[in-house]
Amino acid sequence: MALPVSPLAVPLPEMPAIAGVRLGVIEAGIRYKGRADLTMFEFPAGTSVAGVFTRNKCPGAPVDWCRAAMKSGKARALVVNAGNANVFTGKAGRETTKATAEAAAKLVGCKPTEVFLASTGVIGETLPHERLTAALPALFAALTPDRWAEAARGIMTTDTFPKGSVRTASIGGATVTIAGIAKGSGMIAPDMATMLSFIATDAKVPAAALQKLLAKGCDKTFNCVTVDSDTSTSDSVMVFATGQVKHPRVPAEGGAVLKDFARALNEVLHDLALQVARDGEGAQKLVTINVTGAVSAKSAHRIAMSIANSPLVKTAIAGEDANWGRIVMAVGKAGEPADRDKLSVAVGGVWMAQEGGVVPGYDETPVVAHMKGREVEITVDIGLGKGKATAWTCDLTHGYIDINGSYRS
Amino acid sequence: MALPVSPLAVPLPEMPAIAGVRLGVIEAGIRYKGRADLTMFEFPAGTSVAGVFTRNKCPGAPVDWCRAAMKSGKARALVVNAGNANVFTGKAGRETTKATAEAAAKLVGCKPTEVFLASTGVIGETLPHERLTAALPALFAALTPDRWAEAARGIMTTDTFPKGSVRTASIGGATVTIAGIAKGSGMIAPDMATMLSFIATDAKVPAAALQKLLAKGCDKTFNCVTVDSDTSTSDSVMVFATGQVKHPRVPAEGGAVLKDFARALNEVLHDLALQVARDGEGAQKLVTINVTGAVSAKSAHRIAMSIANSPLVKTAIAGEDANWGRIVMAVGKAGEPADRDKLSVAVGGVWMAQEGGVVPGYDETPVVAHMKGREVEITVDIGLGKGKATAWTCDLTHGYIDINGSYRS
Repeated sequence: MALPVSPLAVPLPEMPAIAGVRLGVIEAGIRYKGRADLTMFEFPAGTSVAGVFTRNKCPGAPVDWCRAAMKSGKARALVVNAGNANVFTGKAGRETTKATAEAAAKLVGCKPTEVFLASTGVIGETLPHERLTAALPALFAALTPDRWAEAARGIMTTDTFPKGSVRTASIGGATVTIAGIAKGSGMIAPDMATMLSFIATDAKVPAAALQKLLAKGCDKTFNCVTVDSDTSTSDSVMVFATGQVKHPRVPAEGGAVLKDFARALNEVLHDLALQVARDGEGAQKLVTINVTGAVSAKSAHRIAMSIANSPLVKTAIAGEDANWGRIVMAVGKAGEPADRDKLSVAVGGVWMAQEGGVVPGYDETPVVAHMKGREVEITVDIGLGKGKATAWTCDLTHGYIDINGSYRS
Repeated sequence: MALPVSPLAVPLPEMPAIAGVRLGVIEAGIRYKGRADLTMFEFPAGTSVAGVFTRNKCPGAPVDWCRAAMKSGKARALVVNAGNANVFTGKAGRETTKATAEAAAKLVGCKPTEVFLASTGVIGETLPHERLTAALPALFAALTPDRWAEAARGIMTTDTFPKGSVRTASIGGATVTIAGIAKGSGMIAPDMATMLSFIATDAKVPAAALQKLLAKGCDKTFNCVTVDSDTSTSDSVMVFATGQVKHPRVPAEGGAVLKDFARALNEVLHDLALQVARDGEGAQKLVTINVTGAVSAKSAHRIAMSIANSPLVKTAIAGEDANWGRIVMAVGKAGEPADRDKLSVAVGGVWMAQEGGVVPGYDETPVVAHMKGREVEITVDIGLGKGKATAWTCDLTHGYIDINGSYRS
């Protein structure tokens, strides 16, 4: 299936080596032909790890594996395959994760529980572990520090462009680097995590502190993105900190010393999350939804997500129609406190509706022009309190139907 | 916009007169050209009424009007317009409901609060009351008992076929008749009600008893139907009982004497709700989702609705792909208790997946044949308890995008 590249695509940034990280890709023949589909990262001893995973109640076997392995807070390797999600594969699925982790651990010289796993692709089909274990030795032998771009491509499924982000931060005067990649295009409505994203840093951050920053960061980034309201069974975001840069010691609980690091990590999470929305299946427009004046931040988030998940709002945007009636419907269906007569709606910064009705003398010319662009901004003021939130999504187009009506064939 | 008739359409049944009810339609020029868009029902003195309305927090002005008017339990008229929903229209919207009710009350010779109102169509555009009040006298003058089929057509918006249902029931040996019509095609995810449905009976049922039966009936019918997960701001189901048939007196709280009446009412609600799913925007297949073995009926309902609302499940069905991986995803995202390894999934009565994996030796031939049909049945057994529920939806096709990307233009 050759999909055209999303018109919202952004170029992959220059991805630098992260001290201590070696990585690579190989063609393991899992599902796709003529492309790398197996990716491996190796981390040095002493690497700490944090992760957030899907809240879907039917998670994939690799998610179960990672949740258990995460307890030690230590990582030496990451193995990711594309083409088969190893979800709802019963005992065979668990055997595949175990065999893959054992094979990777043997190559790296570590415990299997220091190997992290992720799989993405079709759900419900057995993933024979031989496909992975047979390819691992050649993959491991060719790991280098500079193959981030290949890794970003190796984890793609219906993605139409590779996604990466890089930031630097200061910890006590020392400069550390954070690099991350992500994949995701459909089945995107993350709940505490999204699809697959892997981030590495050369900072030395204890696992507990890293976990706290990651969870908090995902709440404002990946958890505010939706393509189709469908929460994947494989959502996983993991951060690996190799500790190769010398900087003041970070206490287990983190704290002020990590302020700039947290800023940079959040920027990477935000950047990657928006790239996922930009590559939403069939996306023609990137949509930012700002909600202000809700009774709480949580309420604002729920209202923003209700708008972002509304098929009627998303098809109207695809049709370049600033249909604020549908926006009002989506506010009301969220179930959160709202008063129709205090509500205001703006598109592209122009207030169209205020105090329960259309703005007197409303001129739709600038709004029509805004709707024709690639980036659409909707702002809703609930008029009840100070809660605010932002969500990101894409429009709902024929492309989504094309991709998902024939995914398996 | 001339939409092709849904391939799932069923013929409108023969709609009999209901003793005491006179009705009619007229072309009021609200939005559409060359079709009736204003419908009126007149009921005799002594008619009781019950209604359930949208839980959307931004309801339309007519919903506000009906909620207030419903308190008396008495009805003498119903006025419905198509083409403009009179939602998010502020003070002008309230003025339109008041002026319309007053004009109708003057013609009928009743109080304005005995006139019920419903509007459906575009949200957020002012509905000038003159359009309605100017047309009412001619409409009222032509009311007759036999124009149910015209009324079923007069309330349509993006519907492609008129929807009606008729049943008879016995109350203490006397035969009463229940007739109802409905409209609805998109923005369908009712919560205590759906779109517009109007039902009349010649039975004499106190308003309190009628309300109880209606609320209970809607929970298992309209509230189990979804087209696109978007809860309308106008959802209204109302039942009018003219009391023109002599039968044993029904106490205010209802009870055993209404057993057969309740059965017949539920059949009408069920029939109309399924006709709405059959006319879902772009629908090519009617989908029935049975969930068994959940921890409670409520839990089963939430899981069934999660499957019914999943864009990925619905696009797979459109593509005639029995993609049970996506069904498992939708079970898991519902947030209800589920154990991947106890889950079973059947399509068309064939168990494809059991105990967390594909059924050994699974032969997909009969499932492939079932998926090619117009009616698709999915059964999910959660394996945890005795809760069960059924939901109905349609597939998600290019037709939905076509209709909703250009609705206002």
